[in-house]
Amino acid sequence: MKSLKELLKEKKQDALLVYIHEHEAYDFADEVDDLDDDELSELLQLLPDIEIAHLLEESDDEERLRIALMLDEHRFLMVINDMSDDDIVDILSDFNIGKRKKLLDQMKKEDRDIITGLLQYPEESAGGLMTTAYIALREERTVAEGLRRIVEIAPKTEQLQTIYVVDDKNKLCGSVDLRKLLTSPRTAKLLEIMSPHPISIEAEADQEEAAKLVARYDLNTLPVVTHGQLLGVITVDDIIDVIIQESDEDLLKLYGVNEEETLESTLFESVKMRLPWLLVNLLTAFLASSVVKLFEDTISQVVALSAIMTIISGMGGNAGSQTMSIVVRHLARETVNSTEGRRALFKEIFAGIINGAINGIVTSIVVYIIYHNVFLSLIVIVAMIGNMVVAGIFGFLVPVCLKMMHQDPAVASSIFVTTATDVLGFFIFLALAKLFLPLLI
Amino acid sequence: MKSLKELLKEKKQDALLVYIHEHEAYDFADEVDDLDDDELSELLQLLPDIEIAHLLEESDDEERLRIALMLDEHRFLMVINDMSDDDIVDILSDFNIGKRKKLLDQMKKEDRDIITGLLQYPEESAGGLMTTAYIALREERTVAEGLRRIVEIAPKTEQLQTIYVVDDKNKLCGSVDLRKLLTSPRTAKLLEIMSPHPISIEAEADQEEAAKLVARYDLNTLPVVTHGQLLGVITVDDIIDVIIQESDEDLLKLYGVNEEETLESTLFESVKMRLPWLLVNLLTAFLASSVVKLFEDTISQVVALSAIMTIISGMGGNAGSQTMSIVVRHLARETVNSTEGRRALFKEIFAGIINGAINGIVTSIVVYIIYHNVFLSLIVIVAMIGNMVVAGIFGFLVPVCLKMMHQDPAVASSIFVTTATDVLGFFIFLALAKLFLPLLI
Repeated sequence: MKSLKELLKEKKQDALLVYIHEHEAYDFADEVDDLDDDELSELLQLLPDIEIAHLLEESDDEERLRIALMLDEHRFLMVINDMSDDDIVDILSDFNIGKRKKLLDQMKKEDRDIITGLLQYPEESAGGLMTTAYIALREERTVAEGLRRIVEIAPKTEQLQTIYVVDDKNKLCGSVDLRKLLTSPRTAKLLEIMSPHPISIEAEADQEEAAKLVARYDLNTLPVVTHGQLLGVITVDDIIDVIIQESDEDLLKLYGVNEEETLESTLFESVKMRLPWLLVNLLTAFLASSVVKLFEDTISQVVALSAIMTIISGMGGNAGSQTMSIVVRHLARETVNSTEGRRALFKEIFAGIINGAINGIVTSIVVYIIYHNVFLSLIVIVAMIGNMVVAGIFGFLVPVCLKMMHQDPAVASSIFVTTATDVLGFFIFLALAKLFLPLLI
Repeated sequence: MKSLKELLKEKKQDALLVYIHEHEAYDFADEVDDLDDDELSELLQLLPDIEIAHLLEESDDEERLRIALMLDEHRFLMVINDMSDDDIVDILSDFNIGKRKKLLDQMKKEDRDIITGLLQYPEESAGGLMTTAYIALREERTVAEGLRRIVEIAPKTEQLQTIYVVDDKNKLCGSVDLRKLLTSPRTAKLLEIMSPHPISIEAEADQEEAAKLVARYDLNTLPVVTHGQLLGVITVDDIIDVIIQESDEDLLKLYGVNEEETLESTLFESVKMRLPWLLVNLLTAFLASSVVKLFEDTISQVVALSAIMTIISGMGGNAGSQTMSIVVRHLARETVNSTEGRRALFKEIFAGIINGAINGIVTSIVVYIIYHNVFLSLIVIVAMIGNMVVAGIFGFLVPVCLKMMHQDPAVASSIFVTTATDVLGFFIFLALAKLFLPLLI
């Protein structure tokens, strides 16, 4: 089978269409991504509008903009005729205001109104995700009419699982699953067979909220409303993208990585996105280091301390991250009420004592073998327990407090937790050493 | 409105059913979770089988088992009559073999065969996720027959978006979207209107694979096959649960947390799950610490080193985690080919040089202000650059190599990366200090 690039050289449209027919739209878009500008413009000349529409729907933001900008305005308007309006909105929102307005002005009035309506919602809001290609019928309509409507709208709508029922003020008052529709008497009114008060979301709500609702209630579509009026629906395929995106973000944020960064980012982008976080960490590193400096005289008398202190602080950091990641994961799904919060905090403290004791004893044995000083070993145990308790307390409280202050726990938690375990880890250990210095020399 | 507990005291079934009708199944299951055993058994006596079936479908594994064990066998068999078979399988797989067999023996033969068929697949495989409640028709069937079949099966099947077309050997050969069915001439054969070779997955494949396919190709259902024969379908709501579960796991694994652990885990469970990872970390901490010990004589002469070295190693750890998390995130979705791999590695090295230089200079200024030794400041800069390059190299190579060795990059990456940045961070800095010791005193 010939490659896409070969087919483009031959400029054979029919062969190209066969090729497209034999590949999944997503995979085809993936290959188009690798074309250089000449090949791409060649492709766009060969492809019918509808195929370009499919291509745009499957492309990522970057590729989509690249393709859209290669099309002259007339062609572009022809192409988006074949696209669902939420995809059109995604594309237009990548354009600059000027070009966007220019294109909107050339659209049919009704299309323009829909698109401008959708454009007003931020990309990461429920309104930004929704499509207006759905089926909504008045309460007094019958099952037969519902089925007829479905057949009419079928080619346009993204989904058919659910019909939404609205009153004369377009207020969402119920939903009818297609199954229900197919198995109900043709003459029944939708009002009689609908399930009332379907789950819905406000257009201004964050997309993460929409994802939670769809995941919790196993929805195939989520109706979007404002003041109870039905504006559009969010389809499950868009929700899946949101879930993947949001969970990626949480993971990266914990490590101070900008969610925009990928393996493909340029050197400059990477440095620009990582440096700020590193500089913030540098400040906390200075803080920890200054604690060590406080005890320079102690260290100078028992230099062994400098090797051992790194174990105490490091282990605290590890324990703290464990607690923190569990709490952050929990907060991403639900909140913590005071009862379970208190219980969890106490659990962390005791876990810190137990894990601290076990790790402390192991460490103290190794320390004793090397330095033959039982007091040094005892200090190691106490310090390890102390720092692991610190880890448990901060690992739990930091994300919870950030959440309370309506901050994203994923972003700043690790900074505060590791700072606490470093600073206090060094302090507990070195302060104890200074206190019992005579016994260590 | 009365609470569930109150309704149970009053033992009023009708009021209870109203209550259930007015709550989302998921929320109701949530409340049932809080009932004590007496209340729960009271509830089970009041509820009709169908409602218990819904309850079981919405409950988490723990609650589901608790309810199932409260039902006597006869009642249990009545209840699961109303459940979709993938849910029945989930419940039975929680029972011990003995009880499971006892129940299977009492089922109708055809049910038993389906369930035992499904039970053979591991819970986290495509086969473990699939349901057999779907619509499959032979190629020569007509659109009219397809629609009739849908109406028949509608009450049972979980989804209706897609009809699957099979040949006389039950080999999956196409799919027909319901939209297509509704808009095609009634007499057309499915063979003529179906889209051939639908995306499908092998029953043995991991559930993560299934999730990737659904997300990539925006599927509402994913057919499961073995040797090309259609066995069942996976519905998108189950896929969403998989995506959430898998992404959680990746996040937690990076921090050495067992994905089983939640905020609700007992103290004992938490300690048992976290301790192993902490002990592994302890070994690496000893390693780093022993490097410091190597240079005790140098530190004893320039005690300032012990404070500064913590900054070098800590910053390397932060930079390494940034790189690592980006690579792990990338590997979770796709692989890295050698060209982009080489490119990315070089980028990380240069990013390490630049970030190292900037952080190094900032640190060196602070160090100079405190210790007034320009050579010490220069060593700080060189060591910082060195360790950030180490961070870039290991942060990239460790997850990639783990993936090549078919290990899960999320699990062990952070251990190796932080070990590298600690050990080499201390070594580079202290070795340089030892080398130029005369200039530092």
